[in-house]
Amino acid sequence: MLGIIRVLTTEDEAILQEHSRLIKAEFQLDSLTRCIPEQRNGIYNEETMKAAVPKIKALAKKMVKYDGVTAVAISCAADPAVTSCRELVNVPVIGAGEAGAYAALMVSRKVGVLGITREVPPNISSILGDAFLSYTYPDSVSTTVDLLKTGAMEKAVAAGRKLADIGATCILFACTGYSTIGLRNVLQKHVKLPVIDLVRAQAVAYSLTE
Amino acid sequence: MLGIIRVLTTEDEAILQEHSRLIKAEFQLDSLTRCIPEQRNGIYNEETMKAAVPKIKALAKKMVKYDGVTAVAISCAADPAVTSCRELVNVPVIGAGEAGAYAALMVSRKVGVLGITREVPPNISSILGDAFLSYTYPDSVSTTVDLLKTGAMEKAVAAGRKLADIGATCILFACTGYSTIGLRNVLQKHVKLPVIDLVRAQAVAYSLTE
Repeated sequence: MLGIIRVLTTEDEAILQEHSRLIKAEFQLDSLTRCIPEQRNGIYNEETMKAAVPKIKALAKKMVKYDGVTAVAISCAADPAVTSCRELVNVPVIGAGEAGAYAALMVSRKVGVLGITREVPPNISSILGDAFLSYTYPDSVSTTVDLLKTGAMEKAVAAGRKLADIGATCILFACTGYSTIGLRNVLQKHVKLPVIDLVRAQAVAYSLTE
Repeated sequence: MLGIIRVLTTEDEAILQEHSRLIKAEFQLDSLTRCIPEQRNGIYNEETMKAAVPKIKALAKKMVKYDGVTAVAISCAADPAVTSCRELVNVPVIGAGEAGAYAALMVSRKVGVLGITREVPPNISSILGDAFLSYTYPDSVSTTVDLLKTGAMEKAVAAGRKLADIGATCILFACTGYSTIGLRNVLQKHVKLPVIDLVRAQAVAYSLTE
């Protein structure tokens, strides 16, 4: 059983369980999702990243010990606490950002990255290396919660199309909020390219460990 | 439809179709396999690699043009002609070695590599970087055809166990012949670690493009 850590605090069960639901629907894999406390807008800058790290470490330990999960996925593009969790628990630890970047490298050498922050997440650009083509984000979006607002889907599609127009041979999401709103299926109708969704990438990584 | 290029010449349909069969059985994905001519023992040194490259390029072009495949997988750990095929065709080109190495990095930072050649394939060790732990190969095996001989499975399992014993947190195959003999399922009964099979890694990469 995969343990999914969401870095966005929510009591909305539908939002909380969306990554588990997606993994079950598309890969028939069972998972258990929990979220960290007191981060209503998730992780979107250095300060919120710093605040999240100890909460993620504590939750990873707890899920391995008490929930008996056989792998942990930290469902955030910034890969918070991924390296330190690998020292803490004796099961595979999957980072959404890392898994997505490696997945993109499997199929492309010109990767366009679509995120929500002003700069490309450094963990992702460093893995992509020479294969990193360009980065963009939708207008008026700066946290994962903004993706749930009216019009966010259209803005994200427009941003994705821009990456295709400048020659990307693959589009990599750099926010798991795009999984929550189901952007991949919508964007793939507009661009004829592989579109790497981070939650799918985590599922793929987990399926390799099973 | 995925086009699979085997770098081992064979008229034995069961052996030729084994990677397509495995991808269908485990991932419900359709594929078409063809092999290059006049390489009865596959690729196992610099000379056989050099001989294979123009044949692979020609076959990739042909499969995109006449078979209408929407992605090409070159089913060899050494990733022969992967880079040059990316220039030749306008569909994603997947290398088995690359895909496997990126898959291993999704779940581990101490990767033990199990191949058939005397040295770790340089494309794989270069992708793994600091996450490369060690390399080994089974006794009396030096080409993919040797894996079909009696006793090869036991020798491969023993070599895989050695990697687990020295602290690998993931075992990565560096020969697609291990997929042909079904080593992954056997080895996973002996080591409690993710075992990355290159044909599965190709399937996963392809599924991300669909």
